Amino acid sequence: MQPDLLPGHCAASVLHNLRSTPPLVHCMTNDVVQGFTANVLLAIGAAPAMVIEPEEAAQFAPIASALLINIGTLTADSSRAMLAAIHAANQSSTPWVLDPVAVGALAFRTRFAHELLALKPAAIRGNASEILALAGEHSAGRGVDSADDALSALPAALKLAQLTGAVVAVTGEEDYVTDGENAWSVAGGGVLMTRVVGTGCALSAVVAACCSLPGTRLDNVAAACQFMKFAGEQAIAVSRGPGSFVPAFLDALYGLNAEALA
Amino acid sequence: MQPDLLPGHCAASVLHNLRSTPPLVHCMTNDVVQGFTANVLLAIGAAPAMVIEPEEAAQFAPIASALLINIGTLTADSSRAMLAAIHAANQSSTPWVLDPVAVGALAFRTRFAHELLALKPAAIRGNASEILALAGEHSAGRGVDSADDALSALPAALKLAQLTGAVVAVTGEEDYVTDGENAWSVAGGGVLMTRVVGTGCALSAVVAACCSLPGTRLDNVAAACQFMKFAGEQAIAVSRGPGSFVPAFLDALYGLNAEALA
Amino acid sequence: MQPDLLPGHCAASVLHNLRSTPPLVHCMTNDVVQGFTANVLLAIGAAPAMVIEPEEAAQFAPIASALLINIGTLTADSSRAMLAAIHAANQSSTPWVLDPVAVGALAFRTRFAHELLALKPAAIRGNASEILALAGEHSAGRGVDSADDALSALPAALKLAQLTGAVVAVTGEEDYVTDGENAWSVAGGGVLMTRVVGTGCALSAVVAACCSLPGTRLDNVAAACQFMKFAGEQAIAVSRGPGSFVPAFLDALYGLNAEALA
Repeated sequence: MQPDLLPGHCAASVLHNLRSTPPLVHCMTNDVVQGFTANVLLAIGAAPAMVIEPEEAAQFAPIASALLINIGTLTADSSRAMLAAIHAANQSSTPWVLDPVAVGALAFRTRFAHELLALKPAAIRGNASEILALAGEHSAGRGVDSADDALSALPAALKLAQLTGAVVAVTGEEDYVTDGENAWSVAGGGVLMTRVVGTGCALSAVVAACCSLPGTRLDNVAAACQFMKFAGEQAIAVSRGPGSFVPAFLDALYGLNAEALA
Repeated sequence: MQPDLLPGHCAASVLHNLRSTPPLVHCMTNDVVQGFTANVLLAIGAAPAMVIEPEEAAQFAPIASALLINIGTLTADSSRAMLAAIHAANQSSTPWVLDPVAVGALAFRTRFAHELLALKPAAIRGNASEILALAGEHSAGRGVDSADDALSALPAALKLAQLTGAVVAVTGEEDYVTDGENAWSVAGGGVLMTRVVGTGCALSAVVAACCSLPGTRLDNVAAACQFMKFAGEQAIAVSRGPGSFVPAFLDALYGLNAEALA
Repeated sequence: MQPDLLPGHCAASVLHNLRSTPPLVHCMTNDVVQGFTANVLLAIGAAPAMVIEPEEAAQFAPIASALLINIGTLTADSSRAMLAAIHAANQSSTPWVLDPVAVGALAFRTRFAHELLALKPAAIRGNASEILALAGEHSAGRGVDSADDALSALPAALKLAQLTGAVVAVTGEEDYVTDGENAWSVAGGGVLMTRVVGTGCALSAVVAACCSLPGTRLDNVAAACQFMKFAGEQAIAVSRGPGSFVPAFLDALYGLNAEALA
């Protein structure tokens, strides 16, 4: 199964919605990518807020447009704050997104991520190894790297989507996004994006932003992937390496426009 | 009331003092802006140190030239370490600065920030919504963004300065700085600075650095605002977006000189 | 004593080994430099993973090629997780590296760092003040800055290497690396590198990566220093300040090749 490419007019329409009513994304994410995640959201036209104390996280989730849960540097304390935020988000119908960083390889986060699957995430975004592990399949990951191919994890993504009700994005050289019934593929980007920390984590924040928009969730999540692939490709074209990629990428996200996407 | 612009020779003189005896700024700041804050201080000629364990924070505050307290990702643990550092700073006459991120919108940090007002901050730096909330006025903020205009918050800033003895800077499209009696305005910068995370938080660190310098505290704090507005304007002139802004901004801070400011 | 410069062919050979089997570096490092450290490792061709929960850290150390322990923002909680990781690393013969940030100036981390010396670090990387303090000599540091000269700390580095069995790198304007018997010096870089946060911390991560490679540990650690000095010098040549230095530095690390080093 090779899903069709997301049509450009579809991504263009989601970008139009995002810029019309900028989502405020409550990010509970790992220690490594906090600044980059915030800058990606700001560049594309959304607003970030990192609120982590349990009482405040629960108070903020209903104020935010969407909530991001990224378990990259999970601790016992942060897991409790995340649960408080997720329950508050669900009570106020704030969509929340799971980024299951390095799930499968490590026991504490694997137990936690499986516990979260029952709490109705709006979307899940991971690499092939993470999606395979979350769906209970064998994966070859040894941490944050994926040792598996995205297309090979599409069946696991379909299964996970059906199990949880979430839209599942499995990302890699090409991205695949499914709601358990239909699927899109998204092309673009390039290997240099894997030499910069946080491109996947920041994508999950953009996925969260897009989950708060009107329209079909499947299309919204695939559009988030398309924004990053498109800006990534533009940035790679003018970069000399991963260092010059970062400013070029943020500039490209800032300059994204519906016409170019369409 | 529209305060006069800070004279250029005044900012120039503060920059000269900063470069003559580089302040060491003890930063207890939020998780998102740690690296950017350190790089801003280093670029302008000061030195950062992030020390967060309660015993060490209390030990370090007297060694440092100034202490920054930023409550952006406050937790119960970090609030205890901040209190220990503030008490040690006060005992050794190390000036400390409060950045009340998102105060008003969230209960835990709002209680904490109000508690800190009695502990004699040398300066407070916030956006209009934060200064209004801290002064007990109605504000429209929903997190880190300000939904209010800086000039409209100047009366609240005056009140807060009189109440606490701190110099209060309310920053936005234009900045206003007051000691409760006199006030300066500071112009420059540009809207692109709001598309990069941490420009306000890093300004608060520069305010802390300047609070350790000889001279009038009101002028020192306004000069800190001027450095950032000036460098921001220079950087925007050569940027293609928020990505290329960051390196250009740090380069501009590094290249700041008294002649250009005057 | 002025040690000989590390021969270029030696650094070239270590780079070849690193690129042939990219090390996965488990980084337990400070809050300020997480993103930069990860990006330096990715740029040079290694892989970073930040795993900090005690159970997971102990589980991950044996999976990783090497473990980095950086005490820049040490807390009681993180010190427990670090000990768990170090014990697991030692049991599985994963080499671990100590970066004793600001040791000597602050009591809690100084006690902790001395406790770690008995746990067989493969290497220790610090500035002169830190190495002097760790060796029990008088140092003039007041935090992360070194107030001492690297060459003057070489005797302390030799003593520390003999005491612990670690290769000790004392870095500054010139770097000195010793296994307690032999020593190399490494030249290059430039003062602009001290105006960017994390160049030393990121070097320690590259040291950890190189400690996992075949060959002589002394040569491997000195090569890590040489990679950073070499890329730093290249980046300074094309930078206008510390802002443009960062992308240029990461690009230079990415483009490092054995021929140029030789």
